[in-house]
Amino acid sequence: MSDFTKLSIEELNKNKNELIKRYNEFKSQKLELDMTRGKPCPEQLDLSMDLLQFADKDNYKTQNGVDCRNYGGVDGIPEAKNLFSQYLEVEPDEIIVGGNASLTFMHDTFMRAMIHGVDEDSVPWSKQPKLKFLCPSPGYDRHFSICEFMGIEMITIEMDENGPDMDIVENLVSEDESIKGIWCVPKYSNPSGITYSDEVIDRLSSMKTKASDFRIFCDNAYSAHHLTDTPDKLKNILEACKKAGNPDRVYIFGSTAKITFAGGGVSMMAGSKKNIDRAKKQLIIQSIGPDKINQLRHVCFFKDMDGVTNLMKKHAMILKPKFDAVQTILERELAGKNIVQWSNPKGGYFVSINTLDNCAKDIVKMASDAGVKLTPAGATYPYKNDPRDRNIRVAPSFPGLNDINKAMELFAICIQIVSINKLLK
Amino acid sequence: MSDFTKLSIEELNKNKNELIKRYNEFKSQKLELDMTRGKPCPEQLDLSMDLLQFADKDNYKTQNGVDCRNYGGVDGIPEAKNLFSQYLEVEPDEIIVGGNASLTFMHDTFMRAMIHGVDEDSVPWSKQPKLKFLCPSPGYDRHFSICEFMGIEMITIEMDENGPDMDIVENLVSEDESIKGIWCVPKYSNPSGITYSDEVIDRLSSMKTKASDFRIFCDNAYSAHHLTDTPDKLKNILEACKKAGNPDRVYIFGSTAKITFAGGGVSMMAGSKKNIDRAKKQLIIQSIGPDKINQLRHVCFFKDMDGVTNLMKKHAMILKPKFDAVQTILERELAGKNIVQWSNPKGGYFVSINTLDNCAKDIVKMASDAGVKLTPAGATYPYKNDPRDRNIRVAPSFPGLNDINKAMELFAICIQIVSINKLLK
Repeated sequence: MSDFTKLSIEELNKNKNELIKRYNEFKSQKLELDMTRGKPCPEQLDLSMDLLQFADKDNYKTQNGVDCRNYGGVDGIPEAKNLFSQYLEVEPDEIIVGGNASLTFMHDTFMRAMIHGVDEDSVPWSKQPKLKFLCPSPGYDRHFSICEFMGIEMITIEMDENGPDMDIVENLVSEDESIKGIWCVPKYSNPSGITYSDEVIDRLSSMKTKASDFRIFCDNAYSAHHLTDTPDKLKNILEACKKAGNPDRVYIFGSTAKITFAGGGVSMMAGSKKNIDRAKKQLIIQSIGPDKINQLRHVCFFKDMDGVTNLMKKHAMILKPKFDAVQTILERELAGKNIVQWSNPKGGYFVSINTLDNCAKDIVKMASDAGVKLTPAGATYPYKNDPRDRNIRVAPSFPGLNDINKAMELFAICIQIVSINKLLK
Repeated sequence: MSDFTKLSIEELNKNKNELIKRYNEFKSQKLELDMTRGKPCPEQLDLSMDLLQFADKDNYKTQNGVDCRNYGGVDGIPEAKNLFSQYLEVEPDEIIVGGNASLTFMHDTFMRAMIHGVDEDSVPWSKQPKLKFLCPSPGYDRHFSICEFMGIEMITIEMDENGPDMDIVENLVSEDESIKGIWCVPKYSNPSGITYSDEVIDRLSSMKTKASDFRIFCDNAYSAHHLTDTPDKLKNILEACKKAGNPDRVYIFGSTAKITFAGGGVSMMAGSKKNIDRAKKQLIIQSIGPDKINQLRHVCFFKDMDGVTNLMKKHAMILKPKFDAVQTILERELAGKNIVQWSNPKGGYFVSINTLDNCAKDIVKMASDAGVKLTPAGATYPYKNDPRDRNIRVAPSFPGLNDINKAMELFAICIQIVSINKLLK
């Protein structure tokens, strides 16, 4: 393959003409493909249909005799707390198991910090003159939406293969009291796919923060979502925080959204016993208890952590060929051309692509014009503003293999055309 | 029966001695009875076990083809919106169907008002110098807990058989800009059982409020929860608000908590299209969507409003004998003694008792000492402070008939002993 940055204008134009011919062929097919959202595909959802069998007239009580159909139990049923505390690697008294969305736990934790502060001794965030949050990017748009909704200024932090740039993070938090926390997706990060290194976890846990009410919002969304047999290993951040003398610094979130049903799973929030006890006291104002029947279903379905692990292997069998297809086509079309870098994640739901600067928006638009919807350029950055306009998130989980092949080929064509236009300027 | 207030000291003491003998007999039985919470009983929950059959490999999509297992649809599935908009007597675009708890909708609506105000033009409540809320009382303790949690000062409003004392309400809201709203349980009110009169609904809807961001939080928890064949009829408050030119004044909440499963039902929030559109925009920050599978279950189980109505008749068949037992014993033990008044509700979950002033706490303690747990005196008032210490809420739904008979007899004995002590002072 030839390095586009070293081609002559004539050679670039020749390439471009061929690519435009291919682009127009795609356009004439009137495709309608969607690569935007990290949704499980129907075949993945089918894996958990047995879940729906559980809970019936012979099975609606917890082991300790609580009727799951009735009110109560704000922190979840004991067997769910037991199972999912293993999943998140915390103790059963360090977890709350809730409804169907971990996003709700995150959002509500912000809301409560706004109204009441993060502990008894701290000032409500809404009463503080200025609020800022660190946002390692590219990252998850819905995290950034929460900050935006709360009126919290977001500071973009660059990511590398080990996690957020910790030199910058440490500098900022040590000096600025208005920085109240940091968003993290520490394993198979959305969208870059990287897993935070042990050093990054240690530095996050032990760094000095000017704000005494600084919090790490650790969205462990892809804890068990491996694509290979040699999964990444994430250092336990709650233990690291305890060891560093900052036990209350981290909130951890997770869910079965991408294990059982994206819309009908169970969610969890974990942290120090102090944080969880406080969260429970606040939660009881909002809810008499979660849907315990659905928690019972999940516990019966999984039985134990092996049940989770085995199910995740079946997910991987469905997802791996799709991720492989993305790699194959990007490799075939783009390798050696020196216009793009892409991730090859060992887990999670995304492939992250960095183009030449100031190309991402044009590429996404061009693909859209030919019937392939991609996540809007910029969506992976705070305020939907990618300062270099280069990151594009590809979500291969939902479409079928044929669609992925078509979509990725078209995508690769668009990348090349826009890149050539850029190089020709 | 003799009027205790007209008995001589000797006669009162004679009565008291007999009552104490009966009390001690009860105490020796070492009862453990709980009349505290408005929970459905297991037989009621059994009525909805067929609900759990729905949703399986042949039934997981909405009529318009949406996969209920996956993400999306923040305002609920169309068929659920259709059914429950009939239930709350609003239009399908005036409702959101959510998770298992209407309390969550109420709490979160407060939270959002704190952070963002109630509409685009209003100041966030948390940025206003002082916040007050009108609390018709006796009322629902969890409503008051929400106000307390938000730091909103509660003003107790007395209730009569038509609803809150509207002369007082109108006076207060017309003069005090810091009064941001009023709590209402307009049908079979918790705990008094009364249903607001048409006039009260009209006055609430049309009254002039000094605060432009005044809101009625209308918890229609017992909309279909009749105990008789001649149910109360509640005037449509959203229509009344529209007619009065205040379409955005009211938020309406409801749930199937006491129709299907208290812990595993679905909840709803209704209001003007403007309010609901705003709520949806804010909700999407908190959740990608509710548990649509459980909504589908509910729709399949009910089929239509007749399904709801018929199920509620079965609930009434279980509940009516329990409410009758309460009436029979209170009548037998207390009628004509001029020491207590009690409600005889046509629906809802409670019987409300007013004793002589400054007796309620002592009665509840005395009953508790003999093994009968009653809702703590004061719980039905803001700050758990019943200024006359006279209201006691009895919840007959959960215990069996034998337990109710025993508990109510003991309760009636305690009422008489404490009342006599009071009269003897």
